[in-house]
Amino acid sequence: MSAPDAGTSLAARLLAGDRRALSRSLTVIENNAPESGRLISEIFPWTGKAAVIGFTGSPGAGKSTLVDRVAEQLVSQGSKVAILAVDPSSPFTGGAILGDRIRMSRVSESPSVFIRSMASRGALGGLAPRSAEFIFALDAAGFDYILVETVGVGQGEVEIVRYCDSVCVVLVPGMGDGIQALKAGILEIADVFVINKADYDGADRLERELIVMLGLTHAVTEDSPPIIRTVASEGKGTLDFVNLLAKRLERFRQTGKAQERRRFFMKEALWRESTRLLSMGFEKYCETNGLTALSLEELTARKQDPRTAAQELVQEYLTRKSRDAS
Amino acid sequence: MSAPDAGTSLAARLLAGDRRALSRSLTVIENNAPESGRLISEIFPWTGKAAVIGFTGSPGAGKSTLVDRVAEQLVSQGSKVAILAVDPSSPFTGGAILGDRIRMSRVSESPSVFIRSMASRGALGGLAPRSAEFIFALDAAGFDYILVETVGVGQGEVEIVRYCDSVCVVLVPGMGDGIQALKAGILEIADVFVINKADYDGADRLERELIVMLGLTHAVTEDSPPIIRTVASEGKGTLDFVNLLAKRLERFRQTGKAQERRRFFMKEALWRESTRLLSMGFEKYCETNGLTALSLEELTARKQDPRTAAQELVQEYLTRKSRDAS
Repeated sequence: MSAPDAGTSLAARLLAGDRRALSRSLTVIENNAPESGRLISEIFPWTGKAAVIGFTGSPGAGKSTLVDRVAEQLVSQGSKVAILAVDPSSPFTGGAILGDRIRMSRVSESPSVFIRSMASRGALGGLAPRSAEFIFALDAAGFDYILVETVGVGQGEVEIVRYCDSVCVVLVPGMGDGIQALKAGILEIADVFVINKADYDGADRLERELIVMLGLTHAVTEDSPPIIRTVASEGKGTLDFVNLLAKRLERFRQTGKAQERRRFFMKEALWRESTRLLSMGFEKYCETNGLTALSLEELTARKQDPRTAAQELVQEYLTRKSRDAS
Repeated sequence: MSAPDAGTSLAARLLAGDRRALSRSLTVIENNAPESGRLISEIFPWTGKAAVIGFTGSPGAGKSTLVDRVAEQLVSQGSKVAILAVDPSSPFTGGAILGDRIRMSRVSESPSVFIRSMASRGALGGLAPRSAEFIFALDAAGFDYILVETVGVGQGEVEIVRYCDSVCVVLVPGMGDGIQALKAGILEIADVFVINKADYDGADRLERELIVMLGLTHAVTEDSPPIIRTVASEGKGTLDFVNLLAKRLERFRQTGKAQERRRFFMKEALWRESTRLLSMGFEKYCETNGLTALSLEELTARKQDPRTAAQELVQEYLTRKSRDAS
């Protein structure tokens, strides 16, 4: 397969490494603009090369600083790095986090680094459905690493870590709730634990707690998640961390875990898009054909409860669709 | 229609005012236990009487204290009151908030008050789909008022306010971000603004900011959201607030806004349940019939992008369903 022909198409420019085309593509994806479908289908064949690393943990754990230092290391090794900062409050702040992110960064001036923020949710709490496509675009644009930075374990911004090849959980000593918050689903997907600000009091205690929680007291294997210490603000431990990450990713490829993760990624992306399409078609059909109105009448008259009404509505929809088709 | 026959059924006991049956019903609903469908269909005809009032605002705004005082007032006027505390962190804390909520409460000992917490989300950020059914159960159990207390504007816990007859936004002076956070969808559904801790510095400034933001500088109508001040910890302003709420609810009934809200409530409940059923049926069919596996093969080989694959999968599903039906 060859790259899209027209030298001026958005996809072609993105694939050629044009930064403005990449920024524009991400905006097209974020807004789900009409041209986004074509864009995705044109860039998708060129995805799958980048390593996607997720960084998650409580606010204040120093994720941004750590990600910045990791990017710096990777660039010094000759890699091209994209940083995707998932912004939980973007609908409210209007994306102010991106400005902060860039201002605080040591690598934002580097030609090998690209930084972008993404709102994790629309108004009233809906998760952005476009995370996977953001990653496709950055991947197709030729970055070797995509570092995804996401705030707030347990606040719903963790969805995107499902699309990562490896997930690092960043903790700091003395934040008692940090470990508690991990219990709900992060443990299963965490590959590396980073104790950042390891020069603070309580680093030893935090490590002991982690070891107990991870069941590492008796059964440490090559595949157990390692615990590493950093002081990212001073660059301490970040080279070791980067080397460890590379080793982990290599190990994942050997054991087949990498392929399994990618498959899971694709399934999630497929599944989210399918149910979105299915629901949209269903809603439109029911509204247009007066089915919603009929159900609502029954409901407001208390003749039927919502569960029963929903069952009948879905049944009626599927029956009608088949009648229409035959 | 008469109440369910068997005097010992869960629904019958709930409708008769049995508190233990109510607690058990809420657990059945929360766990989506097998008997929940029957329970909902049996209690639903007896819903629609309670006034559902939502309280939302930033953590630290004093929502719990305010709700507690409002409950106290309503009880002193002869009403029965349920308090539903939506707990954003419940999967992590194991519902510890309920203990706190009750310990801090002035009304928890009253036979006219019932307090319950509900986890706003499961692991990894999924919103609890059962909010509407929680409200049905409390409503059918005969409470005159259901006070829904939900933390964190903009954190996704606001979903439940869609099911409220009236929504109060609680603010405190000096929390600069409070107003910013309101911009994303809360403004349209807020009926009353409460400046709590109004004895703090900055109450005047907060009120001025609100007035500007709400566009009340030139066009105050009977339907504009009022701004009221309270010091809930001392009970100051809470009687006025309760009276104002009653007046607002009466006005909503006169203008038809109340009926419109209830219709919206029903539509949301119907819609959530329908798309859930539809997606479940779709997923099961695709998995069982090998459609998911086929799509994933195309995806991992990069022969097809997720959007195109999703379109074809949904199309294939609907076509097959109609073939099976004919």
